[in-house]
Parts: sequence; C-alpha cells; structure tokens
Amino acid sequence: MNTTPAEPADRERARAIPEAAVARLAVYLRVLSGMADQGVNAVSSEELSQAAGVNAAKLRKDLSYIGSYGTRGVGYDVEVLVSHIERILGLTRNHSVAVVGIGNLGHALANYGGFPGRGFPVTALFDVDADLVGIPVGGIPVSHIDDITAVCVEREVSIGVIATPPPAAQSVCDRLVSAGVQCILNFAPVVLQVPDNVEVRKVDLAVEMQILSFHVARRADEAAGVSVGNNGLGVDGMVIRP
Amino acid sequence: MNTTPAEPADRERARAIPEAAVARLAVYLRVLSGMADQGVNAVSSEELSQAAGVNAAKLRKDLSYIGSYGTRGVGYDVEVLVSHIERILGLTRNHSVAVVGIGNLGHALANYGGFPGRGFPVTALFDVDADLVGIPVGGIPVSHIDDITAVCVEREVSIGVIATPPPAAQSVCDRLVSAGVQCILNFAPVVLQVPDNVEVRKVDLAVEMQILSFHVARRADEAAGVSVGNNGLGVDGMVIRP
Repeated sequence: MNTTPAEPADRERARAIPEAAVARLAVYLRVLSGMADQGVNAVSSEELSQAAGVNAAKLRKDLSYIGSYGTRGVGYDVEVLVSHIERILGLTRNHSVAVVGIGNLGHALANYGGFPGRGFPVTALFDVDADLVGIPVGGIPVSHIDDITAVCVEREVSIGVIATPPPAAQSVCDRLVSAGVQCILNFAPVVLQVPDNVEVRKVDLAVEMQILSFHVARRADEAAGVSVGNNGLGVDGMVIRP
Repeated sequence: MNTTPAEPADRERARAIPEAAVARLAVYLRVLSGMADQGVNAVSSEELSQAAGVNAAKLRKDLSYIGSYGTRGVGYDVEVLVSHIERILGLTRNHSVAVVGIGNLGHALANYGGFPGRGFPVTALFDVDADLVGIPVGGIPVSHIDDITAVCVEREVSIGVIATPPPAAQSVCDRLVSAGVQCILNFAPVVLQVPDNVEVRKVDLAVEMQILSFHVARRADEAAGVSVGNNGLGVDGMVIRP
C-alpha cells in the first residue's frame, strides 16, 4: 500500500472541509469504487448523487471542497475521483485498529469485513475476561486490557474502537490515549473525556433508536391529527384529536 | 408504559427541530436520566452541557426548540426536562423492533441492553439460515426472512434494523416496508431505495472509520509539515517536507 502523504494543496483543502462533508465523501468513495469495479469510466453528478442518496447540488459542493469540478457534458473521471478522495481521506496509509471489549459487538467488529478491506487492519483485541485472553477472534488473539498500552505502542495502533460496557469505557480510553492513540470510535453510551489532540467519534445505538422513535411519533401524531405531513402544505395549529 | 401522544404545541415544535438537534436531545436525555437516578433535582445549562460534551450555547438553543428555557440562577428541573424530552422523542410509546440478519452484529443488536430498556423491545428476529430459524437469541426465536411481512404485521413492528450482508439489504428493506414498517436502521453499507414515507437512518462503520482516517491523516500531515495545527495560527502554504 502506498504511503504517500497528501499533496500540500490537498492538505490545505482538507482543513476546510466540514465534518458532514467528510462523511459524504466516504459514501461517494464507496459508490465510485463499485462503479470502477464494474468498468465505469465517467459519471455525471446526477448519476453519482442518485447512487449516493444525496442531492446533486450538495454533491457538487462537496466535491468542490476537494477541488474536483468535473467536466461539462462528461462528468467526473471515476478513477481520478476515487484516488483523489482516497488521498483526502488518508486512505493511502494503513491505520492499525485495536478493538477493546470482545462481547457480541466486539466480535462483530473484529470480524467486520469493511475494516481490513480498506486500509484498516485490526491488529489488536482486548478484553478483561481471562477466559478470552489468548483466544483468536478473526485471526487475532485477544490480549488482556492491562496490556493495552504496551501492545498498542508495539503494533502502532492509530485507531482504538471501544466496545466495552459503559463503566469501563473511560479507563479503556485513558489507556489507549496513553499509548498514543489519537482517534477513538466509541460504541459505549458515555461521553469520554480526552485531551484536545484526540478525536472521538461516537456510534450510539440508543441515540439512533431514539431518533427513529422521534420520526415514528411525529408520523403517528400527524396521522392522528389533520394532514400536516411532509408535503409542506399543512395548516399550522389546526389539530383535530379523536 | 404511558401512550399519551405529544401535546399539540410539542408536535408543532417537533416539526421544526433540526435533525442534529434531535440527536443531541437523545444525548441530553441520557445524561439527565443518570442525574435523576442519582437524585439530582436541578441542573444548570453549564453542568448539563459539560456532561453531554456540547457547548452551553448550543445546548440552550437545542432546549429552546422544545420550549424549555430553564430559570435564571436555578437552571432546569431535571425531572420536568426528562419527561419533556421523552415526550418530544416519542419515548412515551413502545416501539417494537425487528432485527434482520442474525450474524455477529445481529446477535449484538438482539442482546443490546439499550433497546428494551427505553421503550424499544426487540420482538422479532429474522435470518435466511435454516439452522438459525427457531433458535432463541436474547429470548426471541429467529424467524425465516420469508416470514418478515407476516410476522412484522402480527407483532406491530414499527422499527426494522437491517444487519444483513449488503446484497440482501434492499430485498429485506422492501419486505419490511411492505409490512408497514416506516423506520429503518440500516447497518448494511448500501443506499436503500424507499418510499417517501419511510425514514432510513444509516450506521455505516466503514464510513466512521474513514472519517477517523481523515483526522489521522490530517494530524500526521500537520506533524510532518510546520505547525499548521488546530490553533488557527498556521501559516498557509508554508510546508517543509523531510
């Protein structure tokens, strides 16, 4: 795997990209990679936006952040755009991943096809359970959490994934940070305290469910009252209750 | 569990809340519930914002969306705010959840403590593997995916969770939608096509990893060049490479 750092111009651009656009770049990359695999050479912003589930104006704006503008009447060169987004996202390097907490979720993450496939090899697993220590999961033997610092330093782990129960998450996080891990993906439903130089992304399944609940409730309320639905034509304040 | 629908005023407000604020409301609710469990009666916006990892101005704005303003010098009444956010998020109803795809991730989701604890009982599990059908996971026997429509209708499932391999996700989604499921949490890395009245939330672990990669790369680039770090004082364009 190539380890070329980003071009200076790309780096300047990377600093200005909004977080939400970074997430969409990752989605475009997945769609574009699929197109490249199928031998597609060029794609219009309309085609790409539809396949990515984003509107075309937003897509063009996102790609303008990275300095990709496409060609009128031709669209974007798929291979050029793939390698450009990969460079911006830092996918031309390998990022060693440690997963801490090898319960059901940790097992799923350790075996997750999406990590090693794109430059995120899982190189270390940790759990507190003595019965698990030494057992290979997805080909990697589980280490004890007391060894987080030593093992992460030795294996040059750059991304730590926390899949422990909530009470253990902060102390696990502290150990990862003391091993020099600067990026943490946290599945435990707690707010982690980290130094300024550490980036935390949270995946909170309870929050996702509650957001869905919000939409279920809104729909149910709308169905129970007069139609004040998503069409934007609803009559504010006119609510009839059975 | 109470099934009172939202007050008309709450419903009007709910329609105007930005999606990102909905997610933060869910986080505030978790923090506030923990405080309530510890017997805390009142909380200032500063305390709550710190515990939730959000800045205080944003917190106050988010709470203003739901019409909660707190009292100067006293702050917010914890119990009142908890029940208000629960009502806005629709958590005063039960939402039956179906999980489709009982691999490692599906197992983790079926056993996930956060779902049943807050009004999201998992009531149906589905897989295509004949060896799994009939086996209970987290107390619920697995059904065959051919029975998605019948089982979801019978058990009044309102939220469907897709944890299948990517190629199966769309057809599973179609079956959930035909059973009247209007909210889908999708873990498969594909863009699902759904009717306008169906809400899809995606949890894409590969995208999360790529966002982290972006930050790792940016930090590494910054460390390799002159300090153009997060302090906003960097000198644009001055890059020294080893």
